[in-house]
Amino acid sequence: MRAIGIDLGGTKIAAGLVDLDTGAVLRRTIIPSEGDKGPQVVMDRMADAARQVMEGKIVGVGVGAPGPVNYQGVVLWTPNLGGWKNIPVAPEMERRLELPTRADNDANLAAWAEYRFGAARPFASFFYLTISTGIGCGIVLNRQVWRGHHGWAGETGHMPVVRQGRKCGCGSYGCWETVASGTAIGRAGSEALGRPVDAKAIFQLAAQGDAEAQKVLDEAIDYVALGLTSLQKNFDLEAVIIGGGVSRAGDAFFIPLRQKTLGYLRHMVDEVIILPAQLGEEVGIIGAAALWT
Amino acid sequence: MRAIGIDLGGTKIAAGLVDLDTGAVLRRTIIPSEGDKGPQVVMDRMADAARQVMEGKIVGVGVGAPGPVNYQGVVLWTPNLGGWKNIPVAPEMERRLELPTRADNDANLAAWAEYRFGAARPFASFFYLTISTGIGCGIVLNRQVWRGHHGWAGETGHMPVVRQGRKCGCGSYGCWETVASGTAIGRAGSEALGRPVDAKAIFQLAAQGDAEAQKVLDEAIDYVALGLTSLQKNFDLEAVIIGGGVSRAGDAFFIPLRQKTLGYLRHMVDEVIILPAQLGEEVGIIGAAALWT
Repeated sequence: MRAIGIDLGGTKIAAGLVDLDTGAVLRRTIIPSEGDKGPQVVMDRMADAARQVMEGKIVGVGVGAPGPVNYQGVVLWTPNLGGWKNIPVAPEMERRLELPTRADNDANLAAWAEYRFGAARPFASFFYLTISTGIGCGIVLNRQVWRGHHGWAGETGHMPVVRQGRKCGCGSYGCWETVASGTAIGRAGSEALGRPVDAKAIFQLAAQGDAEAQKVLDEAIDYVALGLTSLQKNFDLEAVIIGGGVSRAGDAFFIPLRQKTLGYLRHMVDEVIILPAQLGEEVGIIGAAALWT
Repeated sequence: MRAIGIDLGGTKIAAGLVDLDTGAVLRRTIIPSEGDKGPQVVMDRMADAARQVMEGKIVGVGVGAPGPVNYQGVVLWTPNLGGWKNIPVAPEMERRLELPTRADNDANLAAWAEYRFGAARPFASFFYLTISTGIGCGIVLNRQVWRGHHGWAGETGHMPVVRQGRKCGCGSYGCWETVASGTAIGRAGSEALGRPVDAKAIFQLAAQGDAEAQKVLDEAIDYVALGLTSLQKNFDLEAVIIGGGVSRAGDAFFIPLRQKTLGYLRHMVDEVIILPAQLGEEVGIIGAAALWT
């Protein structure tokens, strides 16, 4: 069985032909999304990308969108793509491609891809987080993505962790991603060092023994742990899977994160499972196609 | 159909005979728990209380415990009852009463009681909170209590909302209940006014126009709203039902709480459903018995 997965991003559209038994991406294309031309043009381009990779019998099309998607396949809004408010992307793509189409939020789909083909295969219930520019979250409960009543569950990057804290891009204050994302690490690092650096540079400097960089990292990872603690104290899931740019720091990220999270949860558990995501940059395509599994 | 509900508290045991069709408590007794004599004595007393209210055919016994309970009916620990660590309360009561017995955490059971017979009847998925000395939470997802992987979901009162904040009874710091419970309102009020007051007095003083009391209340309710915002941004449930002492303040609590929560969630929703619990002090008995519905 094969499906088409379309991963809509802020700057590019990736589409792939996916083998649903193995999760393998058999064919793939990437084109600019040209988001400034509005949703109709973007959807035309998504259809073009899908046609480029089509081959053989296709059971359906899946779309991953960078924002919450409701149960009718309508993108409610997107923080990073102009003009996407209440856009019925699933019906529109179904009309363009004449194939049954489903849509969901990209973090939900990444969670689903990791569940079907990646690091989350052993777990019935887990949180998937992607920590990079912001923080995305997909929640799988009892082997199903939990999308919430309106379809915007997993807006975890915007849970308030600092009361009256820094203003977030979402309009609110002190959201988790203002203190625990890659962007937050870069900003705190730039302030501490007095020169512009990104999260990757902070990890490198800390590895070289830079005390200031280490301090920035300690605080950010502590905030990641604090957020995970909120999630786990509420929902007690089996595992947390983390992808995105920050997770690529590997042990320098995961070892202190496990330690700090376990510190916060110690009176409840003596173990906490926090694992790196296994699927790479194709996770968006795979997850979108996996809507048909 | 009738079941026995046993509500184990820090100082007393309440037991009742419950009509499972209506939720009515047909017979009821309350005795001291004598927690200082250890779990075996307490369980003997629970059995005595159950026998006092038994009448007619009983489908089973339910026990609500003031702490997390695992899937084998074992109380993992209780903050307010000495010596309760890994106590197999369901099997022990089954042996004593020779009736099938189930057990769960008291907040989970209150959520379930409100779902079956109270304010949560219209909702498939909701948070139930009881805000009094501490903050308890029961989570119903798709018409089932979500108990989590180990059985300690809903430890929401202990989610961290103030990093490096005040020490909590649980051993952690800055937990939600350190700033948003009745106890927290009383403490903040006593500090602000320079004399010992409780949450009820603060609500009364604020109603009489006392600016200091109003300020204490505003901050506490803002923290309640902040916690609800975390829950809703993660899980997007249909409603929040709130019981416990603080909820008895009525409009003085619910009107600003709805306003503040909606303020935090405004970029996502234009409505948020936050309702008072409907069942009174018998909620624990009803919920325990309702384990058999």
